[in-house]
Amino acid sequence: MSDWTIATLAEAIRAREVSPVEATRTCLERIERLEGRLRSFITVDAEGALRAARTLEAEAVAGRVRGLLHGVPMAWKDLCHVRGLPTSCGTKTAEYFRADHECTAVRRLRRMGAITLGKLNMTELALGPFGDNPHHGDVQNPWRPGHSAGGSSSGAGAAVAAGLALGALGSDTGGSIRLPAACCGIVGLKPTYGRVSRAGVMALSWSLDHLGPMTRTVRDAALLLGAIAGHDPRDATSSRRSVPDYIATLDGGVAGLRVGVIENYYFHDLHPEMEAGARAAVELIAGLGARVGEIRVPDPESMVGVCNIIARAESSTVHARVVRERPHELGPAVRARLEVGFHISAHDYLQALRLRSRLTREFIAEVFAEVDALVVPAIPEPAPALVDAKAGSVDDVIRRMGRFSRLTRPLNGLGLPALAVPCGFSSDGRPLAFQIVGRPFDEATVLRLGHAYEQAAGWHRRRPPLD
Amino acid sequence: MSDWTIATLAEAIRAREVSPVEATRTCLERIERLEGRLRSFITVDAEGALRAARTLEAEAVAGRVRGLLHGVPMAWKDLCHVRGLPTSCGTKTAEYFRADHECTAVRRLRRMGAITLGKLNMTELALGPFGDNPHHGDVQNPWRPGHSAGGSSSGAGAAVAAGLALGALGSDTGGSIRLPAACCGIVGLKPTYGRVSRAGVMALSWSLDHLGPMTRTVRDAALLLGAIAGHDPRDATSSRRSVPDYIATLDGGVAGLRVGVIENYYFHDLHPEMEAGARAAVELIAGLGARVGEIRVPDPESMVGVCNIIARAESSTVHARVVRERPHELGPAVRARLEVGFHISAHDYLQALRLRSRLTREFIAEVFAEVDALVVPAIPEPAPALVDAKAGSVDDVIRRMGRFSRLTRPLNGLGLPALAVPCGFSSDGRPLAFQIVGRPFDEATVLRLGHAYEQAAGWHRRRPPLD
Repeated sequence: MSDWTIATLAEAIRAREVSPVEATRTCLERIERLEGRLRSFITVDAEGALRAARTLEAEAVAGRVRGLLHGVPMAWKDLCHVRGLPTSCGTKTAEYFRADHECTAVRRLRRMGAITLGKLNMTELALGPFGDNPHHGDVQNPWRPGHSAGGSSSGAGAAVAAGLALGALGSDTGGSIRLPAACCGIVGLKPTYGRVSRAGVMALSWSLDHLGPMTRTVRDAALLLGAIAGHDPRDATSSRRSVPDYIATLDGGVAGLRVGVIENYYFHDLHPEMEAGARAAVELIAGLGARVGEIRVPDPESMVGVCNIIARAESSTVHARVVRERPHELGPAVRARLEVGFHISAHDYLQALRLRSRLTREFIAEVFAEVDALVVPAIPEPAPALVDAKAGSVDDVIRRMGRFSRLTRPLNGLGLPALAVPCGFSSDGRPLAFQIVGRPFDEATVLRLGHAYEQAAGWHRRRPPLD
Repeated sequence: MSDWTIATLAEAIRAREVSPVEATRTCLERIERLEGRLRSFITVDAEGALRAARTLEAEAVAGRVRGLLHGVPMAWKDLCHVRGLPTSCGTKTAEYFRADHECTAVRRLRRMGAITLGKLNMTELALGPFGDNPHHGDVQNPWRPGHSAGGSSSGAGAAVAAGLALGALGSDTGGSIRLPAACCGIVGLKPTYGRVSRAGVMALSWSLDHLGPMTRTVRDAALLLGAIAGHDPRDATSSRRSVPDYIATLDGGVAGLRVGVIENYYFHDLHPEMEAGARAAVELIAGLGARVGEIRVPDPESMVGVCNIIARAESSTVHARVVRERPHELGPAVRARLEVGFHISAHDYLQALRLRSRLTREFIAEVFAEVDALVVPAIPEPAPALVDAKAGSVDDVIRRMGRFSRLTRPLNGLGLPALAVPCGFSSDGRPLAFQIVGRPFDEATVLRLGHAYEQAAGWHRRRPPLD
């Protein structure tokens, strides 16, 4: 039963082989049994989940299926506002973030039949050090006790990897979907900027924030993306482009697809096992018939610098009140990161926005004239031990986070779709992962390539040693 | 012949009563005769204008008319980039502003048959004090020698009022279309933000900049707006909304139209003759059958403060290079205004953007639930003497400009369409003017009301004492 994916469970529910209540009970029992160790949830809504499951079960029995997710239990990062449940954003005070309306993405998933198990743990304000949450406990990596689950969507990574929920929503400003997915051996998709509405989600840095799915398989990510993508009048940055059928093209294979392996920046100073894992993935992709070649991309270092300025200025503006009114409630690294933002000038911020636009235009014009997709590692090394992640001064911690997220952050500035996919394990059993990056709004190609790799590699069939 | 408007001249050309060459020669002769006094042009392209006129004449003779502006001579503020002519932006160095492509609005006007007479004088970088251009001479008010023509589109105001050109393009970041139109007794329209492309136009403060027509009559403004409005792929802020036929609804009258006279802020501390002029205009509008009433609007003072922060931050970013590399080429007030922008924090800028959004939402929701259009004065007093405009310290000059533009600036922050219309003269012969303000993208109502007033009041039939 812990082998379910969203696709297989939904199929079984539609075939009346499994009931939504049974599926929900299974998840709640796993939560009961494993949460003491994992700390992946901030709020578990057992009652609400079972109530929803019973309704969906009655509907299924009556032959009414809401959509492709009918009866599938999931959970949301605790910065998605859901009516009736508190939203802590990883801070001490629940309801720190007050939204006027529910998270559009959650609402869309529920409309397709998803069940809400609860709200998932995360680093404080999605800014705090990985696995160092002073308010809600450190999320543990399900593959290796005492190790980080990545961040900031750490609870989502752990809960999905451990089978406590079949899928989750995470958010990603500098890698916060892809890093925990990579650390926890699951799939995480940062969609194109504008593909998924962020209405009802706590902003961190609005021009870099993305909402996206975290799942066991690429097919599940495609299912969730299909449900949440598309224009939302409540989010002016959400695109009006039509949403393709990601499932329809998923099995199309990769023969002839031009895949570029970015050699500058992304393969520097990697943990040797991480590098080997990514290179093996590249070889496997070539073996599937893709035309793989090396490529250089314009200036990732400048893009990282630009994103740092933008993220600091925007996040300080978003969180100005909490920094002013209750700094004592924030962890020292979060406070330090927010305070530095007040010292950025409007001129530097605006120059950074302009440079980001130029770098993005250049990147897209140069790179996607040559290739259809890109492959790079997702993390420079496997998930660190929690004790190491927290060691040293505040500056040490912030610098270490910067280094660990250096392979994901430039892609937030570029706004490109980026999928983290597991590509094996280190010798001590920690997950390795790479990213597949595509043209703006071409999630279909990214998912198709990811799915072809995943099916051939088979890493998604492994389970963490929890049971 | 100096009684032509764009509409009547274009009509006469289509009827073959006047030739484009004859019309162009008349304008060039007037320029020759009056420019020594007015200084309204920076570049006159007599040769190019006559060449274009001959082509258009041949086309007209062959029965081919390009559009509603066929053969009508016009001129453009010298921040519109036009191939083959220098663009000074009012600075010492021509070609300070380098555009990749021609001004889209100019190109659209030419496609409709407009002839380019040349490029119009303006204050330095559209920031300098009115009528105090150290590089291109002070534009004189055609109605009263020694007085300012307003700014920053000062040359456009003077040239159109004096009949040197039948119409002009100006730009408006804080009133730079409406103030010179008001000072020079012509019509000036700041369209809705996003209605007219700014591609090929020097930016000053991109979130407050508007491009729009300056003409003798409201009908002419409607003609030009119809030609230049609409989406432009070269300007991402230009709206995709369809462009209505402004001429078709122009004569619809104003019976039953709900018109609000804004009593807070806009009628404070006015020159008594300006206040009397505006109140007389309101009475006349009521007499035409509009339902006129007093109304209060939310917080114009905050909007002015917010626009100041935004304008300073954005203009300093746009012009950072010139301030760093050749400050000695700039006038002291322009330098001071740009330098202060470097000290604005990203946080204050971003807060200002957020507050602007909130104030705009509130304004539109509250005010346009009650009325269909608003009426306020355009300038607090008639055009000042040039010697007074320049007197005192740099701070005095900047403060005085701020006071003079206080009735136009809030409307840039709100992004609403605002039409300046003449409403009489002071006892010493200086023009008075009021503004008509409409819902976003409802230029049609604004123009219809302006036209009804203008035809009833008849001020547009007066000519400045130049001949």
